[in-house]
This record gives sequence, C-alpha cells and structure tokens, in this order.
Amino acid sequence: MAKEFVKDITSMDEDFAQWYTDVVTKADLIDYSSVRGSMIIRPYGYALWENIKNELDHRIKETGHENVYMPLFIPESLLQKEKDHIEGFAPEVAWVTHGGSEELTERWCVRPTSEVLFCEHYKNIIHSYRDLPKLYNQWANVVRWEKTTRPFLRTLEFLWQEGHTCHATDEEAHDETKRMLEVYADVCENILAIPVIKGQKTEKEKFAGAKFTYTIESLMHDGKALQSGTSHHLGDGFAKAFGIQFTDQAGNLQYVQQTSWGFTTRIIGAMIMVHGDDRGLVMPPKVAPTQVMIVPIAQHKEGVLDFAYELKDRLSKSVRVEIDASDKKPGWKFNEYEMKGIPLRLEVGPKDIEKGQVILARRDTGEKIIVSMEELDEKLNQILDDIQKNIFQKASKHREERTSIASNLDHLKNNLETKPGFVKAMWCGNRECEDKVKEETGATSRCMPFEQEAVSDKCVCCGVTANQMVYWAKAY
Amino acid sequence: MAKEFVKDITSMDEDFAQWYTDVVTKADLIDYSSVRGSMIIRPYGYALWENIKNELDHRIKETGHENVYMPLFIPESLLQKEKDHIEGFAPEVAWVTHGGSEELTERWCVRPTSEVLFCEHYKNIIHSYRDLPKLYNQWANVVRWEKTTRPFLRTLEFLWQEGHTCHATDEEAHDETKRMLEVYADVCENILAIPVIKGQKTEKEKFAGAKFTYTIESLMHDGKALQSGTSHHLGDGFAKAFGIQFTDQAGNLQYVQQTSWGFTTRIIGAMIMVHGDDRGLVMPPKVAPTQVMIVPIAQHKEGVLDFAYELKDRLSKSVRVEIDASDKKPGWKFNEYEMKGIPLRLEVGPKDIEKGQVILARRDTGEKIIVSMEELDEKLNQILDDIQKNIFQKASKHREERTSIASNLDHLKNNLETKPGFVKAMWCGNRECEDKVKEETGATSRCMPFEQEAVSDKCVCCGVTANQMVYWAKAY
Ligand SMILES: [Zn+2]
Ligand SMILES: [Zn+2]
Repeated sequence: MAKEFVKDITSMDEDFAQWYTDVVTKADLIDYSSVRGSMIIRPYGYALWENIKNELDHRIKETGHENVYMPLFIPESLLQKEKDHIEGFAPEVAWVTHGGSEELTERWCVRPTSEVLFCEHYKNIIHSYRDLPKLYNQWANVVRWEKTTRPFLRTLEFLWQEGHTCHATDEEAHDETKRMLEVYADVCENILAIPVIKGQKTEKEKFAGAKFTYTIESLMHDGKALQSGTSHHLGDGFAKAFGIQFTDQAGNLQYVQQTSWGFTTRIIGAMIMVHGDDRGLVMPPKVAPTQVMIVPIAQHKEGVLDFAYELKDRLSKSVRVEIDASDKKPGWKFNEYEMKGIPLRLEVGPKDIEKGQVILARRDTGEKIIVSMEELDEKLNQILDDIQKNIFQKASKHREERTSIASNLDHLKNNLETKPGFVKAMWCGNRECEDKVKEETGATSRCMPFEQEAVSDKCVCCGVTANQMVYWAKAY
Repeated sequence: MAKEFVKDITSMDEDFAQWYTDVVTKADLIDYSSVRGSMIIRPYGYALWENIKNELDHRIKETGHENVYMPLFIPESLLQKEKDHIEGFAPEVAWVTHGGSEELTERWCVRPTSEVLFCEHYKNIIHSYRDLPKLYNQWANVVRWEKTTRPFLRTLEFLWQEGHTCHATDEEAHDETKRMLEVYADVCENILAIPVIKGQKTEKEKFAGAKFTYTIESLMHDGKALQSGTSHHLGDGFAKAFGIQFTDQAGNLQYVQQTSWGFTTRIIGAMIMVHGDDRGLVMPPKVAPTQVMIVPIAQHKEGVLDFAYELKDRLSKSVRVEIDASDKKPGWKFNEYEMKGIPLRLEVGPKDIEKGQVILARRDTGEKIIVSMEELDEKLNQILDDIQKNIFQKASKHREERTSIASNLDHLKNNLETKPGFVKAMWCGNRECEDKVKEETGATSRCMPFEQEAVSDKCVCCGVTANQMVYWAKAY
C-alpha cells in the first residue's frame, strides 16, 4: 500500500545513489540545466539553504565576525603567491581568458576559495597590533572544475561561507580554529540533527597551504562518511607569502597568524542522506521551510476551508505553516508532503471541526496524534521539538551501529564490506600506511578525533607501535 | 576649523568625482584590489548592503516571490537563443575557455544577467495554466566587462537581485512590471530617502530583449541622474525563443508573458551622492549599520565608561548602537563618525551623568540636543525618524531646484550648463532626435515619466508637434 504512493522513488537499499537523485529532483530541491555540473536550486531547496544560512550567519556574527565581499575573480599571478595553495587548486579552476572580444593579458580564475584575495586586503589594512584580530567572513559562490558531479555533494559551482581571520599569536589563531569548528558542530548537531565526529585531518588530507585542518565528519545512511565543515589554522605561511605584518606592543614587526573555515551547500546533501527514507526527505524541524502542512479533508463541505485558513493564520504566529487547498486528492497530498519531508501534517475535516480537534501525522515516525484545538499551539511546538530530538537520536544510533574497530588491514577491509561505516583503528602516522589503507580498502582517513581511544597499540597497516586513533571510512 | 577635521576629503564643489572616491575609501566602505574594476566591499559597506537587501528581500517575498539560485555560467549557445539579448550583452561578458588545464569545447560566459537560464528552467517546469504565475527572484553576483569603472556605480562585478516571472497574460505581466517598480520606488524613497521619478525608458534605452522597460531615476548632488532600478516587460520574445508554453483553461497552447527586474549595489553610490556632504557620508537611519555612536567624554574619569557601556546595552534594545571607548581623542571620534555618516552621536561625560542627561548631535543638521535619561529611548527614535524625513526633503528640494524646462535645443543645452539637473522637454518620439540631443548636449533621455506634463507642444529637437514629455539629464 505504501509502495503505491512512492512508486517514483527508488528504494534506498536497492540503489542508494538513484534514491538520492530521485529525492533531490522529485522533492523539488533542484533542477538540472545545460550548465554541466551546476544545479538550479529551486524555491524549496533555496528556502532550506536560507534557513541554514541564517542560523550560521547569526552565530558567525555573535562570535564577533563581520561580513565582507571579495571579488569573484583572481588574477593568475595572485593565485600563485602561495605555493602549496596554487598546487592544490590549479587543476580545478575555471579560467577567464576574454573580456568581451578582447583577450586578457593575464588569465583570471574564478575563485575556488578566497584566501589570496583576503591576504592581499589584509596586507593593506593591518599595520599594528591595534588592528588585530581581523575577523572576516563572506557568503559567496565558488567554482571548482569537477569532472563528476552530484547535486549538493559535488558541484562545479557551490554556495558557501568562508571565514578568514588574522591574529597576533599562534595561540589565538588556534583558539579561533577550534571555536569555528565548534560553531559548525553546533549547527550540524543542534539545527540539522546530524551527529558529527570532531577531529584533525592528517597531513595528506589537510587544506592546501594550512598548518593543520580541523574537521567535522558525519555518517550517511549508506555508511559512507561526509566531511561536513572544515576549519584551518593557516599559521604564517600565507602571511609570509603576502607580507602581512604588524608592529606588536613591544614595537617589533611580526607576521600575523591566520585561519580560514568554510561551510557549504554540501551540508544539504548530508541532511538528505542522514535523515531520508524510502518515502523521501525528512526535514529537521529547525530548518524545514514548512514545518506544518495543513491538508483539509472533504474540503468541498461547507466551512472546512474557512476553518483551515483561519487555523493557518492562527498557527503562523508560532510555526512555519502552509496549506494545500488545491483540488488534488488528500492521498496525493499526503504522499507529496511526506516526500518533501515536512515534519508534521495537520488533517482537519468536518468531523474534526465538530469535535474541536485536528489530526497530526509525524513524518519521522508515521504516528498519528489527535489534538484538541485548545492544546494545539503548545502541542505543535512540543512535537516539533520531539521530532528534532528523535531524528538526531536515530542518526546517532545508526552511526553507533555502523562504527566498528579494526586491528589489522584484513579486519578493516572486512568491516567495511560487511558493515559499511566508520572504522576506528590505530595509525603509526606514516603517509605510506595511509596510502596503503586507501589502496587496499577504498577508505580514507576521515580524522584523528579529539576524543582518542586506544583501540589497539599497533598501526592497523604496518603493525608498528602506534598511539594515534583514526576514523577510517569510504567517503563522499 | 571644520576644514581641519576633514582635511582628507576633497570638497564636493572643488571636484565631485574625487570627493566621491575619498568618501567611499576613507569611510571604509570599499577597498581596491589587484582585480581591475572590482571592489572589496568592507564590513561597513557590506552591513549597509545587508540592511538594504533585507528591506528589499522582505518586500519581494511579501509580494509572493520565491528565491532561487541559478548557475553562474551560461554556455555560449544558450546565451545566443534570443537575438536582441545576445547583441546587447555579448560585447561585455567575461568568457571562460578553460577548466583546469583542459580547453572547453564550448565557451561559457559569466552571467551578465540570467534571463536565458531562467527561461531554460521555465520551459522545464511550466506546462499548464495551473503552473502560473511563476514568481522567482535570485540574489547573485553578475559580471559586465566594463572598461572604466567606479566603486558601486560601475564595476566589473556587482551584486544584485534579479526577479524573473512568467504569467498567463500580457496584462498580468504588465501589472507585475509596475508592481515591482513600485517596490523599488518604495525602498528608494522610504528606506534610502532618495526621491525618484518613475517612468518608461525609450526604445533606445530599454533592456535588450524587452517589450518595454520601466525605470526609477534619481538625481545626484552634482546634478547628474542615476538609474536606480528597472523593471522590464519581456512580452513573449524570450518565451518564443525558448519555447515556454502552457495549456490555458480552454485547452489551447500559449506562450507565457514574462518580466524581469533588478536592483543593484549601484544604489549605494546613489545614496552617497544624494545625501553626502563635505564632511563625508550621511546615512539614512533606516539602513545605517550604526544609528547611534556613543562617544564617552573624559572617559578616564571614574564611572564614565561603565555608565556608557550600560547605556549601550540599554539602548541596543531599540536602536543599532555602538560605542567607541578607544583612547583616541573625542575630536578624532567626532570627525570619524561624521565622515562615516552615523545619524546620531551621543556624548556622555561626568557632568552629564551628574545631571542625568546626554548630548545628542545630529549628522544631518549638526544640531546638538540635550536629552534627559528618562526621555532618551523615546527621543532617539523620534530624532532618527526626523533625520530620515529631513534628508528626504532636502534631496527632494535639491531635485526641484535642479529641474528645469526647455523648449528647444539651445535652451536645453543652456539649462544643463548653468544648472545641471533634470530638464523636462517634449519629444516627438523619433530616435534621430533622441540621438541628436545626446550628441549636442551630452544628456540622455532618462525616462518618459508616468506623470506627464505638457511643458510645450513641440519636440525640443526638431520642433514638430510632440506630446511626450521626457526627463533629460547627463547620467552616471
Ligand atoms: Zn603504519
Ligand atoms: Zn523630434
């Protein structure tokens, strides 16, 4: 019976990739265009991004940062100033060679990230310790010339915020790197209901040009990991390349210590793959563009639509509520808004009006709840809170079930095959072992978690003494 | 004495262009970079843009529009689908020819505007009259390869919103075109305190591909006009080029009627040039990032800073207030925040605390007002409202003084020389006359205002009978 309604969505277990594509298109989050690898973010998808953006922007401002806007283009010579950085990004940038009919004397790339633009600006405006810290952020589009792309997860162009800060000391920069990772973790866990592992990237996986990179990693329904936000301590590498110096309180010239950190539309992909099910999307109430959808029952009967619209007006003071009063059948509407992941459906028909009640249907559990009109406002908020908590717990439980321990390579490989997910295993710190794990198992080091455990005393790969625990996983 | 404080800003009458450049850079709105023609929008400038954007976004949503996001790039073949459109934009687009090290098989331009992307999408999603109207908007960056650029006024890249809508009938599209022009006029007049003339562009000046273009035109301090927002009725030209059709209620296949409308960071340039003076910026209170700046007097004396900070906390509930407790001299601070155009300065020192009062200084009039602590919250809002009204009236008066009437070409030329501003004059409707006016006087037709007056009965250029009144002006 359920199957009948959701015939358009491939089952998750059958083909997870196809399920994902079905969901993002049929739930009207995105559309494709003739621009390869780019997506059209449709009203429902963009409203979701606006809600996520507002939550994050608020926190970015609250922690003392200011928004700015940098140019879209970067002249090739500017991009080349920091060596590791250009090496990391050159293969994947789009190059502008002509303006109108004229060929440019120097190629410009479309920003893949804006470190070098911020650095050039910082050199102009930072002179004394009084000018520090500088805590800037920008909301922007960036471009990376990816070969294979998937909506939200890997697109040629994506939307993000990138924070760029300058500090007087290494310690302050370190604190900032940590602070912003915590902000990202807060948004993931408390707003998007996505549990994350916080940790540090290995040298191999760190950002091009960084001293080190902190990351939050989350686990999708299919057992693959997704990097959900990164925060980089840049040290003074960029400062030296760009000559960003300040006079400290003692009168000495010093290089600034920098950080950068970013959070992207990719997180929408994570949200979909963490909470979704065979019926479609499941939106966390805190970011759901519509939290409650009113579906009038027997709406042709006198008084039903008036009642439903009045109810909508009343509820709109405390929740994001919509009504579908179209002439489509209730069954179609139920299916449609379940597919779109709207947390609560509110049914109201002649009998309910008579009894002074409505019926609520939870998207996460399918449970139907009869609520009296008097209690409705209070109950709605209570249930939305409960849904938010429930889907977080569900995701946490799934991650727990999909997290295993391995003490050697065979063990690791076996775990990844039988129960795809995170595998905790020790690592000696050598790049060779990291490479070999990837080669043999397809898993990459996701992070060295801040919360370490000695799950063994030997490297999972070479067997020498090791005291670093790493989360390994196949990843998006 | 005044001069001493503002020695860094060129006087407006001496060199208006230099005054403008001084203001945008010294008031920390923008900085230059090595990216020719692009600007860095600094925190103060970006906070201003965020306030403008919020006011407009709110109105766009209130009128039933939904935000979306389209790709940054447009393949050349897609741009070429509508002939007038490509002719209008081809000379000024940036071309991407390489992705990483690979040459593209087809060039992509960076969007100069997104009509063609919206059209391609609309063709996909519109099928029936039930799908109409589609009321979409996007906030985005766009690029036009300008040769000469000036911060905000004409930049290679700028930020804007672009609305794109589809309707079942010509009349509905016409109403929409008008509605959005009114929204722009509302934001200009009631939020930015910039009086505007509403009207229609001539055929020569209309948008490439439009049926007609509505515009709002404002007058700068130096008597030059600035196009402040445009709304285009696209008719079915794009619909035919892209095949956007729907089945109407009678079952017939029809082309949609479209509109597009845009409002850009350019308006910040207008705001500066309408309200600014020799001391620098004058921010309209409704968009000022900081509405009240507290400057503690004799702040080393016991209790002053504590008092000032407590005051700030209290006031921050009703106004956007900051405090400068740095060890710079009050005189420096007065000058700095006047230059930055902060509507109200609040001075508080030991004597004021004793007397239970503060001193307010208005940026627009220079007036100083003593206010008791009890009345302060109420007074602040009252004075901010008054400043908002006063600068609008001042700008209206200036425009009135700078608007004249001409009945022939010599007259028109003479008016533009002796009293630069708007000149109202009749036009026969011929392109030749419009071209000749520009050639001989440097003025362009700004618009055919909705409010017509018969200031004469003959064309200002050829002398034949004419019943169309046009606003002429030199323009940015
Ligand atoms: Zn090893
Ligand atoms: Zn004429």
